[in-house]
Amino acid sequence: MRTLRTVAELREALTPERRAGRTIAFVPTMGAFHEGHLSLMRAARQRADVVVVSLFVNPAQFNPDEDLSAYPRDEEGDARQAEAQGVDILFAPTTSEVYPTGSPTTEVRVHGLTEPLEGVSRGPAHFHGVTTVVAKLFNMVRPDVAFFGAKDAQQAAVVRAMVRDLDFGIEIGTLPTVRERDGLAMSSRNAYLRGADRENAIALRKALDAAEAAVRDGERDPATVARSARDAMRPYSVEPEYLALVEPTTFAPLAAIDGDVLVAVAARVGPARLIDNTLIRKNGRH
Amino acid sequence: MRTLRTVAELREALTPERRAGRTIAFVPTMGAFHEGHLSLMRAARQRADVVVVSLFVNPAQFNPDEDLSAYPRDEEGDARQAEAQGVDILFAPTTSEVYPTGSPTTEVRVHGLTEPLEGVSRGPAHFHGVTTVVAKLFNMVRPDVAFFGAKDAQQAAVVRAMVRDLDFGIEIGTLPTVRERDGLAMSSRNAYLRGADRENAIALRKALDAAEAAVRDGERDPATVARSARDAMRPYSVEPEYLALVEPTTFAPLAAIDGDVLVAVAARVGPARLIDNTLIRKNGRH
Repeated sequence: MRTLRTVAELREALTPERRAGRTIAFVPTMGAFHEGHLSLMRAARQRADVVVVSLFVNPAQFNPDEDLSAYPRDEEGDARQAEAQGVDILFAPTTSEVYPTGSPTTEVRVHGLTEPLEGVSRGPAHFHGVTTVVAKLFNMVRPDVAFFGAKDAQQAAVVRAMVRDLDFGIEIGTLPTVRERDGLAMSSRNAYLRGADRENAIALRKALDAAEAAVRDGERDPATVARSARDAMRPYSVEPEYLALVEPTTFAPLAAIDGDVLVAVAARVGPARLIDNTLIRKNGRH
Repeated sequence: MRTLRTVAELREALTPERRAGRTIAFVPTMGAFHEGHLSLMRAARQRADVVVVSLFVNPAQFNPDEDLSAYPRDEEGDARQAEAQGVDILFAPTTSEVYPTGSPTTEVRVHGLTEPLEGVSRGPAHFHGVTTVVAKLFNMVRPDVAFFGAKDAQQAAVVRAMVRDLDFGIEIGTLPTVRERDGLAMSSRNAYLRGADRENAIALRKALDAAEAAVRDGERDPATVARSARDAMRPYSVEPEYLALVEPTTFAPLAAIDGDVLVAVAARVGPARLIDNTLIRKNGRH
């Protein structure tokens, strides 16, 4: 595995691969790898001839109140793990390599999809920061396929919309959320959890379980399902920032449950802001 | 020359060329070709192995009060002229091929540069419409180089900013404005000019000439230069929408003339809204 720092090096490495007709798979990350990231890398390894992983903590997607400076960083450990998954290129640029002119003067904005849930909690600039950096990385790497985790369901939907609307011609693969033994969704931000916070963090998964159980029992009213889900969080003293049942591709709120439904939840648990979601399919499969 | 209508056909045609290491030059147009467009096609022909010209009247860059429905269209004549310049592929998609979901839900926005001059006159949405469709076309064609005309100086600067900020890795060539014998900048919108309007349209060029003369004579105050330029339009009864001296890459207004300066003018002449500009270099070259 090679670690590259500049766009020029990256292009120099990838152009001959592309010319030779080799396919390129890409996994954009902010580092602090856990099993979720590794599953994306393995899928990329299976799918393409060349696997590129980017490691860049993107300032443009953090709002001023968020944890940019505290965000966990361990490039050495990350590089070891990426190499073990068979990654060919780890692209780890500096902030000034990605934004040489300072804050970006060109933005990619997806409308609609970016407005509810995380768009409310983190502000509209969050997803604009995500789509802008992903567009940049896509242009740097020019992959055939890119992989995203289902844990960030709204982010994956926003990236899909961008790829479709701007004709990137890149296939987007979404892989299932990887969970700890007790069901907590793996997240780099779980590193912030200690003691009771770690135990209470399971509240998000419990809320999703309760929502699923209610829907399986035949409940068709989203507000009633949401109430059951919120109730399931109470024993852990965790209050959701949002807990919503939405249409899984548009993220529009549901008036009634009569098709696939995505249940999404966000909550602050101690110092960590966590998100999780589950897709409940009409036909019963996950 | 082949005329292609769909993104899929275009990709199918270009992928083997790219694989074979052949370079691709691209000229995005709204059709109604004049000598200005043809000069871009010839530059593309000289520069690359494969020349792609797009012909698409982009609704997203017209505001509701503008001339979208009246915009001159002559695909048959355009195709003949493109073929005569040695163009390989004319990409002429329908509106629904470019915007299959209706109006674009993903936008590319360049900040700053898009705000003055045309950004004031045509509204901020104009350039967002331009950058969004150019980003889409760039992703469809994936050219090595793309050519734009200097007549639309602000548009060329905005596209350069987008390419730099989003790391498109595409070289942008800008070619000089081609003019009629009397100095009128060639434009598809000149087709709207009849009789006295056609004669008065030269007012824009006269304004630029007057500005150049004033700067050559040593005038260093932008307001004084602008006044001379406006005075030169008066005999033609043409009132500028704007007439501005700006820094040529940032389009920031100038407090004093001490380097290169771009003089840009827009005016309505009868039914046509016309623009023109001239770059006055400090060292005297054009």
